[in-house]
Amino acid sequence: MIEIVENPPKSQWEQLTRRAEIKGESLRDIVADILTKVKLHGDSALLQFAREFDKVELNSLEVSSQEIINAEAYVDKSLKTAIQKAAENIYTFHCAQKMDMIHIETVEGVECWQKPVPIESVGLYVPGGNAPLFSTVLMLAIPAKIAGCKDIILTTPPDKNGNIHPAILYAARVAGVTTIIKSGGAQAIGALAFGTESVPKVHKIFGPGNRFVTEAKKQISAEGIAIDMPAGPSEVMIIADEYADLDFIAADFLSQAEHGPDSQSIMLTDSRDIAYRLSEALEKMILRLPNKTMIMKSLQHSRVIFFNNCNDLWNFANEYAPEHLIVNTATPEEAFEKVVNAGSVFLGEFSPESAGDYASGTNHTLPTGGCAKAFSGVNLDSFIKKITFQRLSKEGIGNIAQVVTTMAGNEHLLAHKLAVDIRIEKK
Amino acid sequence: MIEIVENPPKSQWEQLTRRAEIKGESLRDIVADILTKVKLHGDSALLQFAREFDKVELNSLEVSSQEIINAEAYVDKSLKTAIQKAAENIYTFHCAQKMDMIHIETVEGVECWQKPVPIESVGLYVPGGNAPLFSTVLMLAIPAKIAGCKDIILTTPPDKNGNIHPAILYAARVAGVTTIIKSGGAQAIGALAFGTESVPKVHKIFGPGNRFVTEAKKQISAEGIAIDMPAGPSEVMIIADEYADLDFIAADFLSQAEHGPDSQSIMLTDSRDIAYRLSEALEKMILRLPNKTMIMKSLQHSRVIFFNNCNDLWNFANEYAPEHLIVNTATPEEAFEKVVNAGSVFLGEFSPESAGDYASGTNHTLPTGGCAKAFSGVNLDSFIKKITFQRLSKEGIGNIAQVVTTMAGNEHLLAHKLAVDIRIEKK
Repeated sequence: MIEIVENPPKSQWEQLTRRAEIKGESLRDIVADILTKVKLHGDSALLQFAREFDKVELNSLEVSSQEIINAEAYVDKSLKTAIQKAAENIYTFHCAQKMDMIHIETVEGVECWQKPVPIESVGLYVPGGNAPLFSTVLMLAIPAKIAGCKDIILTTPPDKNGNIHPAILYAARVAGVTTIIKSGGAQAIGALAFGTESVPKVHKIFGPGNRFVTEAKKQISAEGIAIDMPAGPSEVMIIADEYADLDFIAADFLSQAEHGPDSQSIMLTDSRDIAYRLSEALEKMILRLPNKTMIMKSLQHSRVIFFNNCNDLWNFANEYAPEHLIVNTATPEEAFEKVVNAGSVFLGEFSPESAGDYASGTNHTLPTGGCAKAFSGVNLDSFIKKITFQRLSKEGIGNIAQVVTTMAGNEHLLAHKLAVDIRIEKK
Repeated sequence: MIEIVENPPKSQWEQLTRRAEIKGESLRDIVADILTKVKLHGDSALLQFAREFDKVELNSLEVSSQEIINAEAYVDKSLKTAIQKAAENIYTFHCAQKMDMIHIETVEGVECWQKPVPIESVGLYVPGGNAPLFSTVLMLAIPAKIAGCKDIILTTPPDKNGNIHPAILYAARVAGVTTIIKSGGAQAIGALAFGTESVPKVHKIFGPGNRFVTEAKKQISAEGIAIDMPAGPSEVMIIADEYADLDFIAADFLSQAEHGPDSQSIMLTDSRDIAYRLSEALEKMILRLPNKTMIMKSLQHSRVIFFNNCNDLWNFANEYAPEHLIVNTATPEEAFEKVVNAGSVFLGEFSPESAGDYASGTNHTLPTGGCAKAFSGVNLDSFIKKITFQRLSKEGIGNIAQVVTTMAGNEHLLAHKLAVDIRIEKK
């Protein structure tokens, strides 16, 4: 059922860590055209796209406060409680990431500061589709709120009646979203990037989405508008030893598979027994789920890799740089030292990806496709920029004048030198 | 000499904060072609571009350790001392930015960590041109070294004899660069992004450059490779009150102007006297510089804006989001509260931009073109990604099981629910 590779030589690693190609070429012009229309025609373009793509005639793009209040009645009490508890944990973990202003005197009379300042206005995209992704609302809006962003604009596509799912509206209220816009797809990204009559222009855009949304984020990012990170299909890597419970691993594989046919699950193990028994466990576990056919199809990119040598195993994991890494071994804490590239790491048998996807407190918006080599997942810092300040006293400028003028002179920047010389001369 | 605008109404702000258009369209195909050639042909493409653009036949792309040692003899003692002292201050300020691992128990039995981990391999681009920009070497390599990046690869174009300026080699050694490559332009960015026989592939690319370099960074960034920030022409905004010394302001204006004809300097003031006397001060100060013609030309984008109302003045500054902001007033410390968008802020009359460009300790690689609304300048964090870890005990998963399964069920992600259920069932 699942392909098993044994001790692949280094020469094969590049091919084994490669993700499925994402075809973006054909999308480029379609998305560029949508973005241009939104830039030129604002709200009327958004309303037209809602007619075309969402099959709905909207009266207003912005969700009214009445709609938000009304939504509450349609959310189950148990779900409300769950959303509140998850929100609390996400709040706790992201609050712990707060940073202080840094202040240091590098030389007598030369004071330097680094001050964290919230990005004033942020846009959060929450995809539509079959399920209401209220968890993503929490993951994006709660850190934005803690950071102190003033305008937190959420856009998400409306259903055929022009409504947003009540659980999304409820989560948005719990998390502190300031404006909710009924718009999805590339057009929503355009609206956040350029602003329209109803949609405030934002400085940074966050959130997952389909190929159109991803391409739109890529295009507006090339124009200098900030985005959270490049997006791609979700993925999990599981490191398992002989002590691992295969039912747990099978359930974790299936969790990844249900995200869609381009998701990828990979198990690395130093136990041949575990490697060869996974398929059986999957077949048993899949019986507990509906739509087996879709999930079976999603397992096509999945793979088991057996390594004799544990160093190779960890090196391979870092080379792959997984979005999610589950370490289901007897000594998972060794991951603190071994893991160099990953989005989020789950230690031990009782830490399934689901825990972090929803409620442990960590963020679920994470770098995919190997981007974990350079990118962090969404965290408090994603909503903050750091401004440096400096103040030199008369003595301070005197103390570094020689250094500055020598360097500026050697870089042929004579006005830079003059700016120091004139201050020394006149005081 | 300099245009003066008085109390512009808000409707004019957008036009007044607009930067000069950067024409990228025509470059796109040229750069895409260069990148493709580097991807396909590696070193031989780099050597061919060196012939074509740098007019040099290189024996080797990598600078040898002998070349680095030899360079020292060609650097003036005074410059060596200056570089060392600047390096110390940059080291001190960026060391102060170190962050600890965060660890918190969000719920009993649910432990979450955020661990800062250095990006393993980074590429630093240092432009060639008329002057050796050894200061940029320090600004990029020192924080990379502090962060703990293993491979710090610097690329910079060779001169017509195939050499790199000795001051660049000296600064690279002081700062801890691990490999120096003789290559400039879009091809150097391609080499860092894809790797060649001589150039290690890196995970993130930093540094300023001309239009080709900027376009190349933009294109590889769209492919998912991390870059420091979008680049554009340099700019300074000066806020001055009636107490400001106009000679200082004039020298700061000229410092900006000498960067080139697309640089911009803007003075905001609540003093009509200061506004109308700047031109005179500029004319006097320019006499102290060679190549007045180039500098005069560079002042064409410069402007003075007088505001009656100080709130408008600060709001305008934030709307412009300057790369450098000099606050030359009697109460510069108010900037800590007032400034929301800026790259680096210089407080008081003894804090010229030159200080931060070279030696105070702050970084000089900063967001331009209004990007300061969402981007930070280069700082220690630019070389680090933050990985989250979590570990749930048996009790921990029990404590959040209900929350996870309720949310997963409502998002129709039943395998996510199963991954928790199976753990609760079996233990």
